[in-house]
Amino acid sequence: MTTIKDSVHDHIEVSGVAEALLDTPMVQRLRRISQLGTVALVYPSANHTRFEHSLGVYHLANETLSHLGIEGVKADRVRAAALLHDAGHGPYSHNVEDVIHRHTGKYHDEVHDLLRAGEVAEVLDDHGLDPGEIADLVRGDGELGQLVSGELDVDRMDYLVRDAHHTGVPYGTIDHERLVRELRFVDGELVLAEGNVQTAESLLVARALMTPAVYGHHTARIAKAMLRRAAERLLDAPDVSPEGLRRFDDHSLFAALRDCEATAGYADRLDRRDLYKRAVWAELDSVPDALLDAGDGEIVDLEREVAEAAGVDREHVVLDVPGRPSIPESTSRVVVNGNIRRLESQSTLVQALMRVQHDQWRFGVYAPDRHTEAVGHAAERVLGLDLDALVSEVRVGRHRTLDEFSEN
Amino acid sequence: MTTIKDSVHDHIEVSGVAEALLDTPMVQRLRRISQLGTVALVYPSANHTRFEHSLGVYHLANETLSHLGIEGVKADRVRAAALLHDAGHGPYSHNVEDVIHRHTGKYHDEVHDLLRAGEVAEVLDDHGLDPGEIADLVRGDGELGQLVSGELDVDRMDYLVRDAHHTGVPYGTIDHERLVRELRFVDGELVLAEGNVQTAESLLVARALMTPAVYGHHTARIAKAMLRRAAERLLDAPDVSPEGLRRFDDHSLFAALRDCEATAGYADRLDRRDLYKRAVWAELDSVPDALLDAGDGEIVDLEREVAEAAGVDREHVVLDVPGRPSIPESTSRVVVNGNIRRLESQSTLVQALMRVQHDQWRFGVYAPDRHTEAVGHAAERVLGLDLDALVSEVRVGRHRTLDEFSEN
Amino acid sequence: MTTIKDSVHDHIEVSGVAEALLDTPMVQRLRRISQLGTVALVYPSANHTRFEHSLGVYHLANETLSHLGIEGVKADRVRAAALLHDAGHGPYSHNVEDVIHRHTGKYHDEVHDLLRAGEVAEVLDDHGLDPGEIADLVRGDGELGQLVSGELDVDRMDYLVRDAHHTGVPYGTIDHERLVRELRFVDGELVLAEGNVQTAESLLVARALMTPAVYGHHTARIAKAMLRRAAERLLDAPDVSPEGLRRFDDHSLFAALRDCEATAGYADRLDRRDLYKRAVWAELDSVPDALLDAGDGEIVDLEREVAEAAGVDREHVVLDVPGRPSIPESTSRVVVNGNIRRLESQSTLVQALMRVQHDQWRFGVYAPDRHTEAVGHAAERVLGLDLDALVSEVRVGRHRTLDEFSEN
Amino acid sequence: MTTIKDSVHDHIEVSGVAEALLDTPMVQRLRRISQLGTVALVYPSANHTRFEHSLGVYHLANETLSHLGIEGVKADRVRAAALLHDAGHGPYSHNVEDVIHRHTGKYHDEVHDLLRAGEVAEVLDDHGLDPGEIADLVRGDGELGQLVSGELDVDRMDYLVRDAHHTGVPYGTIDHERLVRELRFVDGELVLAEGNVQTAESLLVARALMTPAVYGHHTARIAKAMLRRAAERLLDAPDVSPEGLRRFDDHSLFAALRDCEATAGYADRLDRRDLYKRAVWAELDSVPDALLDAGDGEIVDLEREVAEAAGVDREHVVLDVPGRPSIPESTSRVVVNGNIRRLESQSTLVQALMRVQHDQWRFGVYAPDRHTEAVGHAAERVLGLDLDALVSEVRVGRHRTLDEFSEN
Repeated sequence: MTTIKDSVHDHIEVSGVAEALLDTPMVQRLRRISQLGTVALVYPSANHTRFEHSLGVYHLANETLSHLGIEGVKADRVRAAALLHDAGHGPYSHNVEDVIHRHTGKYHDEVHDLLRAGEVAEVLDDHGLDPGEIADLVRGDGELGQLVSGELDVDRMDYLVRDAHHTGVPYGTIDHERLVRELRFVDGELVLAEGNVQTAESLLVARALMTPAVYGHHTARIAKAMLRRAAERLLDAPDVSPEGLRRFDDHSLFAALRDCEATAGYADRLDRRDLYKRAVWAELDSVPDALLDAGDGEIVDLEREVAEAAGVDREHVVLDVPGRPSIPESTSRVVVNGNIRRLESQSTLVQALMRVQHDQWRFGVYAPDRHTEAVGHAAERVLGLDLDALVSEVRVGRHRTLDEFSEN
Repeated sequence: MTTIKDSVHDHIEVSGVAEALLDTPMVQRLRRISQLGTVALVYPSANHTRFEHSLGVYHLANETLSHLGIEGVKADRVRAAALLHDAGHGPYSHNVEDVIHRHTGKYHDEVHDLLRAGEVAEVLDDHGLDPGEIADLVRGDGELGQLVSGELDVDRMDYLVRDAHHTGVPYGTIDHERLVRELRFVDGELVLAEGNVQTAESLLVARALMTPAVYGHHTARIAKAMLRRAAERLLDAPDVSPEGLRRFDDHSLFAALRDCEATAGYADRLDRRDLYKRAVWAELDSVPDALLDAGDGEIVDLEREVAEAAGVDREHVVLDVPGRPSIPESTSRVVVNGNIRRLESQSTLVQALMRVQHDQWRFGVYAPDRHTEAVGHAAERVLGLDLDALVSEVRVGRHRTLDEFSEN
Repeated sequence: MTTIKDSVHDHIEVSGVAEALLDTPMVQRLRRISQLGTVALVYPSANHTRFEHSLGVYHLANETLSHLGIEGVKADRVRAAALLHDAGHGPYSHNVEDVIHRHTGKYHDEVHDLLRAGEVAEVLDDHGLDPGEIADLVRGDGELGQLVSGELDVDRMDYLVRDAHHTGVPYGTIDHERLVRELRFVDGELVLAEGNVQTAESLLVARALMTPAVYGHHTARIAKAMLRRAAERLLDAPDVSPEGLRRFDDHSLFAALRDCEATAGYADRLDRRDLYKRAVWAELDSVPDALLDAGDGEIVDLEREVAEAAGVDREHVVLDVPGRPSIPESTSRVVVNGNIRRLESQSTLVQALMRVQHDQWRFGVYAPDRHTEAVGHAAERVLGLDLDALVSEVRVGRHRTLDEFSEN
Repeated sequence: MTTIKDSVHDHIEVSGVAEALLDTPMVQRLRRISQLGTVALVYPSANHTRFEHSLGVYHLANETLSHLGIEGVKADRVRAAALLHDAGHGPYSHNVEDVIHRHTGKYHDEVHDLLRAGEVAEVLDDHGLDPGEIADLVRGDGELGQLVSGELDVDRMDYLVRDAHHTGVPYGTIDHERLVRELRFVDGELVLAEGNVQTAESLLVARALMTPAVYGHHTARIAKAMLRRAAERLLDAPDVSPEGLRRFDDHSLFAALRDCEATAGYADRLDRRDLYKRAVWAELDSVPDALLDAGDGEIVDLEREVAEAAGVDREHVVLDVPGRPSIPESTSRVVVNGNIRRLESQSTLVQALMRVQHDQWRFGVYAPDRHTEAVGHAAERVLGLDLDALVSEVRVGRHRTLDEFSEN
């Protein structure tokens, strides 16, 4: 057994298949993938990695299994899946995932492919585990898959607490020990035991407060959009394949971006934190449905059109269209008076948080500082945005609440 | 200057009038008034006092004054008021305040009376401060009074963080440093600067989550109701006056309760944590308006009626009718796009929290364990409650969510 | 099973005999015994109680038992002993213990007597445990007794971390989880496993730094000496017996001190924090052996002599003679290269800490502020102290390092 | 003014020259230099960077200046120096510094050169500051230089607390707020005010406990020695100059190591955490003076000799000779009874810590796992080591205390 010191959970005991997996290159690589990517440009202390997060998720899974009395091979599968749940991540966290998926055209099978090859497959085999079953759990399939990837999974419990610890933003500090203790399986469904409506709510509230302050901070989003754009250019180059890019770590991504002529400018801007600024920052109601539903190719075309209309270089316009707002945790199940209920049906607060998320949603158009005004006007026209007013040089939607935090 | 080490704010510097006030009996007495009263029967670590809280409020007031650039005698007044804001509290925190007020018939003038007498008055006078002006600030009057007692006051910032620290419940951990930095005076109103809708929301969310888990935990409420009842009996005795009771500390309250024949039984139960249980636990909609509006005398009569109907001793029925739900912080003011707005008009979340508070409100009838069934039935009948069902032996309202936490 | 939220260890699970013991008056009384007594006059946040500490010791004992694989009745005995280890404490922590022991003349048998009577004995009996065996463990007897009371016991692990948490002084923040994990039984001795010389050292260092800053802070010592003196006067009164005093809680102690004419003055001074000051503060080498070895009666006589020589009231002189310095943890055992070694033989640091403790030892004579000079001179003469110099009005020893911290 | 959220100091306000310096490439580069280098291979959470540490040092410098009442251009110089104090660091923290210095042959002038060029020089000039004066402060020259680099500098205060926060090892948690408050200038010397011998001791104790547990953990040392060796090979390649290497960040260092044929093997081992093991781990007394005094060229020759004697590849032997033990903080000055004293003359503890450091010192010889036995024997013979015994396959010195912690 190995005992590892963690800044969040203190001592983490790793044994059996998890201990053997630790030493594989696939897991060690996670030491070099930052957990929050460009968020560190806003919160300078947020340099934690997927490796420590994966250990944390493993630890919470382990504690939950122990509370639930689940043992043997079933428990080993969950432990392996918890430790491996982020093994498929590309470099710089989620930041360039979309780009990779777009180019490879597959998503669902990738974890299966990954775990079936190399040292990880050998370790799993040595411990009598089937890679396919582990990959299923990572994808949230089956009863126990809910623990690894579901509305009440230990993944989000770890990242909320860990991100709070490392950013210094207290909103994510949930009572994860209580959550872990109150999980139950009832009729094959993972639920929170009687008396935990508020426990479930507190998890959603934590995410609702962390999202605008941390995960969706506009500066982090701008840098992420620039990074994504750079990654796309990188794939235009002959020597980087989407499959190769996915296996990069943060070091190799940055080295590649600096080396490639088409992306060196982006790399330099990111290195210097000399980021684009917002030309448009618009609410959901200001954005036409066509834009929300646009495919990647269309987005690229629209960027080109906006750039032309604004009379600026094509690289100087970046569109950032998040998915429509959703709160997966709202379907968390809790036991209320002996019956399993969806949280959203029990909680006034959850319904409000859905509305909050809708209100906080923003579409962004980014450009170099000196071009924001021109690009903002052009984008409004070309994209058919329904903007209300101009605050300084940012064209924004009706409510115009520009809540921001920390560095900008 | 004195530097005091505090477990929440680390070093607190006290100087000038505040340093002189520290040594007065009135302020030293706060060392022996617990902050959360009967909550410590649920969260055993919650033994912090009004003294450390008062130092914390002084500290946050001081920081706010410094950020706002307020100096001189105006600042001294606020500092004195912050340190003295709880000086009027009776023993065991808020738990027996109502009883005292009921018997003295005055409330609004008591802080004024208090500060005009004794060593505190001398100290204030020595520093050129008028006790009346300090008392006004304690009551929240005037522009600067908002800092001491208002929707955005430093009082609640300190108690949320401090109560979280001492109970171990993380929900109260707000970003008080940010709040303090973002306060502004605009046209005589204390507001949060532009970009702080979420900061304001986080304060409300913290209180909304702490309330059911901590402040309104049913066990703490039962013990508090028993203590209140015992204090009333104490005042029936010839040698304890309401004015005297108010100046008790926790030691003298408990000594008196043990010494007095009429209250020794309550004292023994509280000492042994052998508390009454819930006979009724009903939602707002289940309770007739007449009960909500009943004066103290009527409540006492109703208790007697319920006891008679249930065939139990008169001391064995305690009614606990909280005030109607309200969220004072919802009228907090924030600057949005250059205009001062009430938080409730800007925030979907606040509106939901009002609804949440309504949902969480509970009316309680408490009795010794062996009598809960009889008392529950009698109370339903006598009080005209609209109860839906009986869960074990507690008669509860329709939703019947019995979310509870920790010891019970 | 009951789960209790603790501000230090988060969730503490209590079951079996421990859960039953929780509800006894003897354990509930610990809620009203402060852990650090007069230290709260220096560190205002230090209001934690013997109850929460006892829960913490129980929790760490439980974790250690689990790591060591000890189960069944042997484990139950340790759990009961851990929860009950402070049940024999008098009010206000250790502050008045000496007085009680002096008057009762017995010490060693008191825990045995205590556990053999009342509800605790019934609970132990119900769970098949023998009160005598539990009392033996509390006294540190036998192999498992080392866990409850010994050089490496969980008692000191809990109090160091807890006192650091509540005072705000970080020095006590040890790695208690590591300590608990590394304990082993080898040949009937409790030892730290191979590779833990430093772990053991860190425990000693923590106590060495906490002692002058917290436990032995001169202000806390003065107040403690005054309280001890007051307790003695209380026992002169006809209606308070030593056995009765021992069963007081903090409330009843203070009520009694205020009520008794001979002690009301002390009570008032403690309530107002209007403490005596140091008239003498002398090092070990400045104090004659006769004084160090003086019995209580002799000390009382000496106080009277000093008072007479100084021409002050007899109550205005308090002598405070601590025991000779010692570090019990220095005999902690660690495994080094496969052999059990005493820490002091392995650690240069421990040897230095013994010297440090010797250097920090101080004998004190206290008196009201206006009498310190007269009392200091008189004490020097009467007691035959070898003092070097007079700093302001305090007569101090040769090194004269007056390191102090926080309030004074 | 910019307010930055930090996980250690919460809000850090940056204004004036410091705010302008923040945006320079030289300071932004520190975001990509890890603070603890290979220590993260032992403590997975220790991924914090020189950037956040530099902000922390700036913050503590700022607080100290404010307490000392130092303002104007003198204060601006200290602030700039605090923010820039690590700007000269090579990639991966201190790990490859020695290699660079060895090849450039200069050390003392490099900060001066650095600050005289590029954007930093411009910013300093814009704010009326002279780069040479700032570089002097960084080097600890002059009265105020002691604040930035001296026995009591704010650099070590920040790193101890920060490293404790990120590794999870509590030993470094000092009372930095107290230290900052107690600093004084007396006769041009930075000292701790009266009553702070213990405060000064606590700083040394923290470092004494952190050193073996964190900074000098054998696994981190092995990885560091391998990295240093790899960096040397890299400099043998034609396209990497020592000056270029110094300006690398962590990304470019790892990219270069992977790309270069001579170093790809080391890079792969570090990526996989497949590290060499200890063949020798010897105390100071076991090592001949000649080895301690050997220059780099001699070390390289000795490695070759050992490799030949062991019959292994030349790359498979790494010698790791730390400098002789020293405690710079022991000359910290404190005011004792009105006189300035060196801490070592006042503190028994400091003298013990010097001895402790001597005892903990270790010389290491590292080799791939399968060669440790052969290399150990060869090294003992070739280097003339005075080893006592063989523990498993590691040849160690006489005391053989192999205290270790966390991953190994």
